[in-house]
Amino acid sequence: MKIKAAVAWEADQPLQIEEIDLAGPKNGEVLIKMVATGVCHTDAYTLSGDDPEGLFPVVLGHEGGAIVVETGAGVTSVQKDDHVIPLYTPECGKCNFCTSGKTNLCQAIRETQGKGLMPDGTSRLSKNGEMIHHYMGTSTFAEYAVVPEIALAKINKQAPLDKVCLLGCGITTGIGAVTNTAKVEPGSTVAVFGLGGIGLGVIQGAVLSGAKRIIGVDINPDKFEFARQMGATDFINPKEHDVPIQEVIIDATDGGVDYSFECVGNVNLMRSALECCHKGWGESVIIGVAGAGQEISTRPFQLVTGRVWRGSAFGGVKGRSQLPGMVDQYLAGDIKVDEFVSHTMPLEDINKAFDFMHKGDGIRSVITFD
Amino acid sequence: MKIKAAVAWEADQPLQIEEIDLAGPKNGEVLIKMVATGVCHTDAYTLSGDDPEGLFPVVLGHEGGAIVVETGAGVTSVQKDDHVIPLYTPECGKCNFCTSGKTNLCQAIRETQGKGLMPDGTSRLSKNGEMIHHYMGTSTFAEYAVVPEIALAKINKQAPLDKVCLLGCGITTGIGAVTNTAKVEPGSTVAVFGLGGIGLGVIQGAVLSGAKRIIGVDINPDKFEFARQMGATDFINPKEHDVPIQEVIIDATDGGVDYSFECVGNVNLMRSALECCHKGWGESVIIGVAGAGQEISTRPFQLVTGRVWRGSAFGGVKGRSQLPGMVDQYLAGDIKVDEFVSHTMPLEDINKAFDFMHKGDGIRSVITFD
Repeated sequence: MKIKAAVAWEADQPLQIEEIDLAGPKNGEVLIKMVATGVCHTDAYTLSGDDPEGLFPVVLGHEGGAIVVETGAGVTSVQKDDHVIPLYTPECGKCNFCTSGKTNLCQAIRETQGKGLMPDGTSRLSKNGEMIHHYMGTSTFAEYAVVPEIALAKINKQAPLDKVCLLGCGITTGIGAVTNTAKVEPGSTVAVFGLGGIGLGVIQGAVLSGAKRIIGVDINPDKFEFARQMGATDFINPKEHDVPIQEVIIDATDGGVDYSFECVGNVNLMRSALECCHKGWGESVIIGVAGAGQEISTRPFQLVTGRVWRGSAFGGVKGRSQLPGMVDQYLAGDIKVDEFVSHTMPLEDINKAFDFMHKGDGIRSVITFD
Repeated sequence: MKIKAAVAWEADQPLQIEEIDLAGPKNGEVLIKMVATGVCHTDAYTLSGDDPEGLFPVVLGHEGGAIVVETGAGVTSVQKDDHVIPLYTPECGKCNFCTSGKTNLCQAIRETQGKGLMPDGTSRLSKNGEMIHHYMGTSTFAEYAVVPEIALAKINKQAPLDKVCLLGCGITTGIGAVTNTAKVEPGSTVAVFGLGGIGLGVIQGAVLSGAKRIIGVDINPDKFEFARQMGATDFINPKEHDVPIQEVIIDATDGGVDYSFECVGNVNLMRSALECCHKGWGESVIIGVAGAGQEISTRPFQLVTGRVWRGSAFGGVKGRSQLPGMVDQYLAGDIKVDEFVSHTMPLEDINKAFDFMHKGDGIRSVITFD
């Protein structure tokens, strides 16, 4: 079928809105109609050309809200008209990662997904016979997409897809890093480095976990007010201090925080996030994605004296098992999503969404389809 | 009183066996008669002058087995003739570290202990009026010592002090890192980097935890046989491989180990230990003490994809609460200690113990007092 899509033909160029070809779903695959998609920093990172695993041409996008149109052979868990969120971290339920009880990093289709292909090793996307890559198994910057069944979370139809699409990445990543990865306890003190979409999700997770003190850290003080509305209680702007920010936080918290979260992707900030943790028990979670080849460092004494260094991908959330429940939490008013939507626009204007993001204008732009 | 002690008057010089002065126990302090003491790499590290926190002159030693001779005012938890193991990590039971339920790093007397002094800020050790520092709050290289009450674990009198003195540091550190810090589950695969006293303790801890595969890593294959006797199942000599040792271990374990332990203090090995862990859930524990100023590094992707980096001090063991039980485990045959004693000698020969250690001859030398 012919579909309208935003195609990235090459790195560091604007997306081209054009008609391309989408082949129908094969065995275990599902055709979905996109209702909305968020535009995330990870899309921009890959588009920039800095992502060493980036492939072109490609249809980017991974924060989708969609409706099932057609199921391929063997698909049993979703059917036509189901509302779904595509999952860049799928959940097959069978691989040794899924069955470990310790991680959400399902590996069932990792290899082909990393190559921009469907599980059978081919792409459903093309133009004039030229293959176009899938992206993160989702490719939500298009009217329609074909995705593996194991990469779809079936959600409550009451939820507005042009809002809960944002649960396909950033917000869920932030909340899950707090509740699944760090398992923050009530009464904890938490530091959040970076107050973008992920950091605001972390703040929400900290509120849900009963943290008593939530310290937002950002070099852009314009972000403090919205973070306060989300539940942050304290704010630190590193630019206002001459000493390393970890020292400022340790002084402000009688020895350090119980948990910290790095939501930027800056390796120096990752070190600060670890070292601002309390001796004996402080845990730091890396969420941000660092540039290719960059490394984190610290003195091992930081760990020997009881700090723990972790990371989190998609908030440790098992998409098919847990995401529907988070959508229900949204419907119940326990998770805020609407507030994250700063701009809404049609696919034709998607390059503006990247401009807003690069300018730091708002939290998230949402693309809506007719 | 006059006591015989091995004094380190300055860095990198042999210990001097001589008579020095020991003042009696003050409030909250206890006079103990040493029966035996192990000689540990940490003593050698401080003696070498490389330890930036090393103070001289000093009476070193921290793996003691002793009997209570006299208690100072206010001491209630031990009495004359009790058998005790001095604790370089005390347990006051009252500080926010002790009450956190998350760490064994009691901070009650940390500041003075770090300065080589008793909690009141003075030393009980001197010679001809010249102050001599305490070491790690224990100073076991002497016939008698004065230590804080909170730094004494009262143990079963059936236990031979010339053996269980080794539970005052290395063996306990290794076992505890497995059982307290990592909480290794039955059926796990474990890698142990460095097969000295700590590494052998780790192997014991892994056996006690029901690990199914225990991989010993050392560049000295002479250590493999004893490690096998302790329960290690596989052995890898990094010198026999051209590729990074983490790759060798990942290949040998279908994706990496569940837990790894660095028992050397080499920052490059710490990285290998982390990176040989299984994606999604592998946890690495740093036990070894690195040289001053050295740093650990890795790509943050290692953590974001599910590995966890921790450290452990004294195996996370709360000395007064948990060490007596470990002595009972020794008496029941569940923890091996006798096998670690390679050499026994009087205090006069203590410099030989350092020579043995530097040569890698045996696991531990034990000094016995009359």
